[in-house]
This record gives sequence, C-alpha cells and structure tokens, in this order.
Amino acid sequence: MEESNAILLLSCPDRKGLVARLSNFIFLNNGNIVAADQYTSKWGEYFFMRIEWELNGFALSREEIPIVFAPLARQYDMKWTLHFTDYRPRMAIFVSRHLHCLHDLILRRHMGELDASIETVISNHTDARALVEQFGIKFFHFPITADSKNEQENRQLTLLRDMNIDLVVLARYMQILTGGFIGEYVNRMINIHHSFLPAFSGSNPYQQAYDRGVKIIGATAHYTTEQLDDGPIIAQDVVKISHRDTVTDIQTKSKDLERIVLARALRLHLDNKIIVYGAKTVVFE
Amino acid sequence: MEESNAILLLSCPDRKGLVARLSNFIFLNNGNIVAADQYTSKWGEYFFMRIEWELNGFALSREEIPIVFAPLARQYDMKWTLHFTDYRPRMAIFVSRHLHCLHDLILRRHMGELDASIETVISNHTDARALVEQFGIKFFHFPITADSKNEQENRQLTLLRDMNIDLVVLARYMQILTGGFIGEYVNRMINIHHSFLPAFSGSNPYQQAYDRGVKIIGATAHYTTEQLDDGPIIAQDVVKISHRDTVTDIQTKSKDLERIVLARALRLHLDNKIIVYGAKTVVFE
Amino acid sequence: MEESNAILLLSCPDRKGLVARLSNFIFLNNGNIVAADQYTSKWGEYFFMRIEWELNGFALSREEIPIVFAPLARQYDMKWTLHFTDYRPRMAIFVSRHLHCLHDLILRRHMGELDASIETVISNHTDARALVEQFGIKFFHFPITADSKNEQENRQLTLLRDMNIDLVVLARYMQILTGGFIGEYVNRMINIHHSFLPAFSGSNPYQQAYDRGVKIIGATAHYTTEQLDDGPIIAQDVVKISHRDTVTDIQTKSKDLERIVLARALRLHLDNKIIVYGAKTVVFE
Amino acid sequence: MEESNAILLLSCPDRKGLVARLSNFIFLNNGNIVAADQYTSKWGEYFFMRIEWELNGFALSREEIPIVFAPLARQYDMKWTLHFTDYRPRMAIFVSRHLHCLHDLILRRHMGELDASIETVISNHTDARALVEQFGIKFFHFPITADSKNEQENRQLTLLRDMNIDLVVLARYMQILTGGFIGEYVNRMINIHHSFLPAFSGSNPYQQAYDRGVKIIGATAHYTTEQLDDGPIIAQDVVKISHRDTVTDIQTKSKDLERIVLARALRLHLDNKIIVYGAKTVVFE
Repeated sequence: MEESNAILLLSCPDRKGLVARLSNFIFLNNGNIVAADQYTSKWGEYFFMRIEWELNGFALSREEIPIVFAPLARQYDMKWTLHFTDYRPRMAIFVSRHLHCLHDLILRRHMGELDASIETVISNHTDARALVEQFGIKFFHFPITADSKNEQENRQLTLLRDMNIDLVVLARYMQILTGGFIGEYVNRMINIHHSFLPAFSGSNPYQQAYDRGVKIIGATAHYTTEQLDDGPIIAQDVVKISHRDTVTDIQTKSKDLERIVLARALRLHLDNKIIVYGAKTVVFE
Repeated sequence: MEESNAILLLSCPDRKGLVARLSNFIFLNNGNIVAADQYTSKWGEYFFMRIEWELNGFALSREEIPIVFAPLARQYDMKWTLHFTDYRPRMAIFVSRHLHCLHDLILRRHMGELDASIETVISNHTDARALVEQFGIKFFHFPITADSKNEQENRQLTLLRDMNIDLVVLARYMQILTGGFIGEYVNRMINIHHSFLPAFSGSNPYQQAYDRGVKIIGATAHYTTEQLDDGPIIAQDVVKISHRDTVTDIQTKSKDLERIVLARALRLHLDNKIIVYGAKTVVFE
Repeated sequence: MEESNAILLLSCPDRKGLVARLSNFIFLNNGNIVAADQYTSKWGEYFFMRIEWELNGFALSREEIPIVFAPLARQYDMKWTLHFTDYRPRMAIFVSRHLHCLHDLILRRHMGELDASIETVISNHTDARALVEQFGIKFFHFPITADSKNEQENRQLTLLRDMNIDLVVLARYMQILTGGFIGEYVNRMINIHHSFLPAFSGSNPYQQAYDRGVKIIGATAHYTTEQLDDGPIIAQDVVKISHRDTVTDIQTKSKDLERIVLARALRLHLDNKIIVYGAKTVVFE
Repeated sequence: MEESNAILLLSCPDRKGLVARLSNFIFLNNGNIVAADQYTSKWGEYFFMRIEWELNGFALSREEIPIVFAPLARQYDMKWTLHFTDYRPRMAIFVSRHLHCLHDLILRRHMGELDASIETVISNHTDARALVEQFGIKFFHFPITADSKNEQENRQLTLLRDMNIDLVVLARYMQILTGGFIGEYVNRMINIHHSFLPAFSGSNPYQQAYDRGVKIIGATAHYTTEQLDDGPIIAQDVVKISHRDTVTDIQTKSKDLERIVLARALRLHLDNKIIVYGAKTVVFE
C-alpha cells in the first residue's frame, strides 16, 4: 500500500473555476486531498495553489500524473511543479569558516529532523573537514583565489551534477557566486544572510548593526539570485540587543538566530510550501 | 453592481471530494472564489473550510444561497454559517474600571479600523460614562451586588436583545456571568484575560506573575464559556519582563498587550476567520 | 516631607574610582540611592551612568546640587544633566493626517499613563482638530507650502518657545524640518518612523516592505537629527507579515506597532533613562 | 600580567551608603570596576549587586579578597559569592532519550561558545552514548527502576563528587530526583522544562498544549528544587503555533526553543549574572 502523497505547486492568472477544476481533477481520479492552500494576489490578479493528496487509491501512477495534468495546466497558462513526499532531496552545503549553521544542519540530520540527505559539504577552507567526516559525510575543499575562482566554480558545478544535487545551501559561504553557477540552481539555492534584509546587506552586518545602534538584529534566509542579498525572502527572524552588546555579543546572538532561520527556510522548502513569483515568495505555512 | 462577498464557514467529517463539491457549488453558480482556506484535523479526521466568493455575478441571491446550499450541507453532515462582508455586526462592550481596552476600541472605531458598530457600553461602574458619551455612544450603568446579580443580568440581556446585539466584548469586565447569559452568546462573546492562559487564570494574574517570577507575561482573548478562563482561545501574545518590574510595571506592560490581543481577536471574528470546534479554534489567518 | 527623587545622567572618559566618587558624593550628602545603572563602552573606554536618589533627607537643596556637583564633573570631564522626578515635561505633538499615534498618546494621557503634559498639538492639516479640542488640548494649524515653509517653521518655533515646550514629538508628521528647528530640540525631539530602520528609510516604507517581500516589518522611534531617519535609535519593535498582507494590511499591522514603539520611547525619555552618545543611545531599561 | 576579572554577587537588606561602601572597597584596593549592576527590590527593601573588576593591578590576591571582604559583608548582613572569570566550571549533563539539548550543548562546546567543560554525560538510557563518546566525552549509563532509584542516585552523586562537578544540567532528564540529590546542587542544577511554566507543568506538556488549543508555546529554564517544575525561573521564551500544528509539530518547534532557552540560561549562570532570592531570580542581563 502506497503511503506517500503527491504535491502540486502551481501559479497562473486568476480565472473563475480554478479551484473547482483542480479539485475535480483530483476527485475524478479518486484522490483524497489532505491539504490545500491557495492565495490570490489582490493586485496582480494572480492565483497560487499548493494541493496535496494521497497516492494511495489514486487512479494515476506517478508517471501518468504530469502527462494527464499537462493539458489542464496549459489551458490555464500555469507554472507548476509536482513533488512526492517520499522523495528525499539530495543536498550540498557550502561553508567557509563560520560553522554554526553547518553544525546545526548536521545535528538535525543526526536527530532525523531533516527530510533530505546531506550528500556533501564543500568549502573554500578546511576548518569544517574534521567534523563533517566524523559524521560520515563527504567533504571537498576548493580553495578560491581571484585567479582560480571561475575554474573552481566549474569544478564545483561538475561535482554537483555528478552527485545529482537537488538543493544547494549556502550556510555562511563567504564567496560571491557567478551568475552561471546561480543560474543552474534557480529557486534551488538557499542562502542565510546574517542581517534583517534589506538592512545591512553586504559585508559585516554585525559591525554595521553595532555602528548604527539598532535595538534589534535579524537574520534572513532567501533564494540566491545574481543580485547579492536581493533574492526572494523565505524566512526572517529577529532578536533584541542593547547598547551593552559588543560586536562579539551581536555575533553570538545572531548565530543562534541564523541557525533557526536557515532551518525554518529549509523545512519550508523541503515540505514544498514555497512558490517564488518575481522577487518574492508565497509561503504556505 | 454588487461589491460585497459571501463567506461560508463550515466543518464536517472528512470525506473524499469535499473540496471539489464545494468549489463546484460556487463555480456552477457562476461565483468567483477570492479566498479559500481549509484544514483537515489529522487525528479527528475532521474537515474545516472558509470559502469567500464575490456576490457580483453570482447566480443566487443572498436569500437563495442558504436554501440551495442546505441539501449539500446535510449530505456531508456539515455545521455551517453564512456571512456577508457588507454586514456590520452590532457590538456591545462590557467594562468595569480598567478602561484601556475600551479606550482602544473606541479609538479604532474613530479611526475607521473596526468593521462593527459599538452600539452600547455597559458597566457595573460609572468610570467609563464620560468618555463613552463624549464619543456619542450609549452608556448603561448596571451596578451589581450579590443580591441584584441575577436580576441585573436579566435586564442586561433584555437590553442586548432589544438592541439586536450580535457580539458581546468583555473588555476587562470583572463580573462572572451566569451560564444562562453566556448561553445566549455562544461563540459570540469574547473575553480578554490578562495572562497567558492556562497560566494564572482567576483573579489578579499580574500579582501571580510577579510572585512566580516569570520572565514573560501574556494576554489571551477567548470565547467565553461557563468554565471561567477556559473557553476556546482565539489569540495570545506575550512581552518580556524582568525582576525589575513591579506589579505596577507588569500591569502597564500588560495593558498594551491586552489592547493588541483583544483587537486582533476581534478582527479575526469580524472577518469570519474563526471556526470553533470543541474547546479549540481553527483560525484561518 | 520631600517625596521626589533626583536623577543624574552622565558620561565621561572611563577612569578608576568613578563609581566610588559618585556614590560617595551622594552618600556623604546623606542621600539614599534607589537606582544606579552604569555601562562602560568596551571600545571607546567611555563611562555612562544613571543614578537616582531620594531628595528626602538629602543635605543639598535642588538648587545647590548642580553647584556642588559641578567641580567633580569638571574634574572627570563629564557631560551631565540633572532631573527631578516630580517635574512634568511640557510636550508638543506634531501630526499630519495619520492620527493613530496622536490618538494613542491622548488616550494614555487620559488614563494617567503619561508623565508629561500635552500642551499643544500642531499640524499642517486640520484632521486632528476635533479630537484634540474635544480633550481640551490646544490645537494649532500651520499649513505648509514650499513658499511658506520657513516662515511657518519660525512661527511654530516662536509658539514652542512661548509655551516653554521641553519635548517635541513627531507623531507621524510628514514634513521635513529644517536644521535650525531641529537644532533647538537636540535630543528633545522624538520621531516615529514606520519601518525597521535603517531598512526602508524615506517615504512610503509600507509599499517598500511590500515590494521587497519581507516577512517581518518594524517601527523605529529615534531622536531627530538633520540627517533624515538617521538619528539615534531609542526603541524598535517588529511584527510578522506574510505574502497575504496587502499594503493596507501592512499599514494596519504597522499602526499598532508604531503606537507601542513611540509610547515606549517616550516613557524611556520621560523616565530619564537615555543618554545619547554620537549617533547611538545608551538606554538603561 | 593578570587578564582575569573578579565578580562579586551579593544581596542584603537595603541601607544607605551600600554602593559607596562597595565601590570604595574596590577603589581603595586600586581596582578598576568594569561592570556594576544593582537592583533594589521595592517591596522587600532588599539590595542586590553584581560588581566586576580587573584583577590586574588589584591590591589583594585572589585568596585575600574573601578574607578582607568578609567583615564588610558581615556588617551589612550580606549573602555573597566570589567568582573569577578565568575559572571554567565543570559540568555534568543528564539526559534521557530526547537528545536535542545535549546535541546543542556539545556543538556549542565544539564551537568554543561554552565557558565550561562538559566533564560527563549521564543517562538512564544508552541512546546518547555513541555521539557523546564520538566527541571524546565520558558517558555513564545508570539504568533506573523503582527499586534501584535510590541506589543509583547515590552512585551518581559519588561520581559527581569524584569528578568535582560544579554544575548539573538536566537536559531533558525524565527522572524525578530526590531531595537529597537536589540539596547537594542548590542553585547549581539547571533544568529545561518544555513548557511556558507555570502552564503545563508535569508530564507531556506538548500534548497538554495541543489539547488546550493555545496559540503560543514556550520553554522554561530554571534551577531545580524539590517542588517539581517550581524552581526559580532563569529564562523563558515562546513561539507561535496554530491549529495546524500536530503534537509532533509542537514538539519540533519546541525543541528549537528548548535548545535556545537552555543555552541562554547556561550562559547567564556561567557569566555569574544570576542571584537567587526566595523562589525567584535577579538576572543582570
């Protein structure tokens, strides 16, 4: 007996009868909807939906679903993706020298909290190697210099392709990736930025926050785009600080926040709860 | 041209095809769904839905909708209510001597933030009279003693019926209402309790919080039931305190919180976003 | 018997023995310290202190305190101000057309929560007049055009001087003040900005937040400086939003936040708990 | 050159001149105060202080400080403790089968965030053994039955004494300790409880929160006392939930919270920022 569910994420211009058509598609194929979320953008008149149903008893096989659904999707000019809840995405984590987010993800994997496999950890430094290998995960070191950057990125890309990586997590990776690299992982590359974007984008947001004298700091997880720190935001959270907090204190507080925010964004992505439209996200929490 | 929307709030045992049946009902009557939220309780196998569609162009008049919908609802054993977005519920506010929540509601009404009319303010004291009347709202004073309690409640009820009150707000009303009174306003009477329930129910939660030395205090808005402070929770929020906060400081901080939480609960109720089931609420935010 | 306290706010280069000298000054004049907070900036080696003691039994009269303290202050190169807890600062509130913060302050005054008198409300529009006058507060209308701006500001300044205003609150006043005006109220003019500064400074932060797709919005209260939205931050707070929130929803949520944040900043200022240094604040909460 | 600081934590009945006497004590011995926090309880007229000064240049050796300070302390009837910032407390962590807090603490130690050594992990189960030993930490398994409980506790106590443990952390240890055990670690044993105390004390707070339908859940770190879940609270925090959250979802959200709250409480304890009085704490944050 099939225990898994199918999830359809879709968006299209709003039209009368969309929900009826979509729920009929599933009902007429004998599917049981277990979750449905929709949102109609008030300004753009655009329709977004996440619909999840049981594969058990469904009249179509996994392979047939997209074939049968495609004409309906075409008729409404839909963008759509289909997912199955028993597929575990293959993840690669990029880090530099700040390892708190990496540690946190390894720990969540160890506790069975992560619905993805960590296939590899890639770094421009070697600080993470011992811990990563201790947990039986493959570690690759790609030192980056101004001269070697393009070549190293190409080698990284080859590695990611060879490993069939679905999702790239930049867990405090301090290198700016080229557009070519990013283009291969559109809406499949998540970055954690250590500020409450759009405030304090760029380098050293801890110092920027300290200098400006803000009373609250934040962290932001977003899909990576070519525009640095400008991708669609998935999750943000904040924590209070005061004049007593040094830059080091800010960093310590922020590190806890970054871990939580990145983990939350990852969970939303892995649960297929995010639809990107333009520079923004619809998140069905 | 009709600018208003219809909203259906419903719950029933989960069955295959529910979403399809409901969306077809609207689509086949030429309705345009503008918002739909559903939730299936994982344990109880119970289905909840809020569905909102434009009356403009809809094939059924307001009066016909319930008549045509009733057979479908019966077939699925639904509990349901129907609302129209242009109806402004008629509200009565009960207060005693702490007037911050009352002030806040009057102010929101004055700013046009409240989708309800404040028909009257009722109190067992006269502290609120001047302010209430200054804003052109009717004020009634019902002093309560142990002896007069039942009689006064009956007179209050008569007044509420005469005024066709839809919604009673207990905005820090320090009298315990009898079951008979509450029974007339099931899921239509909202209380604000000045603690993070279920902690510190009963009297003087500020002092209780101070004595226990908690580091966070809260406020809770809930539908009133016969069990004191035990009704279905609509909204809660919290604020940090420290050892430096006296009982008076706790009160000052809490008052801001109570205003916000009560206003949020009211907004959810007036937007018809709440379904009560058992001792809990489904809130479609 | 004197019930009031004295409060000394001071800052100076850090030196050994500062706390001893200051506490001795009070002790040797038979004062009882009821609160003392200090902070030493780790980078600048700068010392900040707030010290509060009972006037009852103190050997020096209010007039003598600054005379006797001055030589000690000079010796340590202190910047300092002296305050008495029974003095109620005289406040002027500037507004334009968004009146939620003004309403909130009037309401707090009415409830006795505000340790200041609202001497006048000044506006470039007349929307606020009815409410303000209804509460017995003087209202002045200064319409502003590009041509009349300087002249009107001069007339406003004359009015403020005539009324002996201690504190100016810009409660959503949509005019940019000139440096000359601001210069008269250095660290005595508080502005509420409807974003989480430094994000979304300038005009229409609600729209900016919507366009960027942030998941959290904020409000910031700060002392006004010539650099727009760049003054020392006193208080900030945030609230979550989602893709479902329209610009209007963002505004509604923000308005609650702005009221809370401005009130908190005002309370800190009126309790003499803030020392400004450079572009930042030390806040002894 | 001595880089370390001394910290005095003290409390006593409030008297005039206390701050002067204490700061003179340090100044006259040529000490430089780097941080001082005080608090006078308004009701109990009780005085609390944390004072930190540089040992470098201080006229008294570490051994002399308590000898010279004792008479002054006696005169004011002080309770006091003396700490040095270069001492790393020796910690023992107790766990059962939920390992997220343990993992988090091991990770923080690995990242150098923890100013204490983890000398041992003790459990009534063996789930934690592999991870603990992987990080080179000693693991001891003490299975507990109703019959063996007292005997096993005695053996645990002997072990803790032999290891000179300063601080016991109950990181989700699901056994109730006897008064004798707790009595040896008064104000030196920290427990994390997975609810917002005093709500949902006792067993299975996740289920309790679900059943009650609260909209916010919390976690509480407190010193352990004989009264279960009733010890002085050090830190609390909360996170929002909704009707969509199952008991498992509540657990997942809570686990992140528990890690953060326990870590925050530990940091406050290790920084010597907590004074316990009665059933409450003064926390100099």
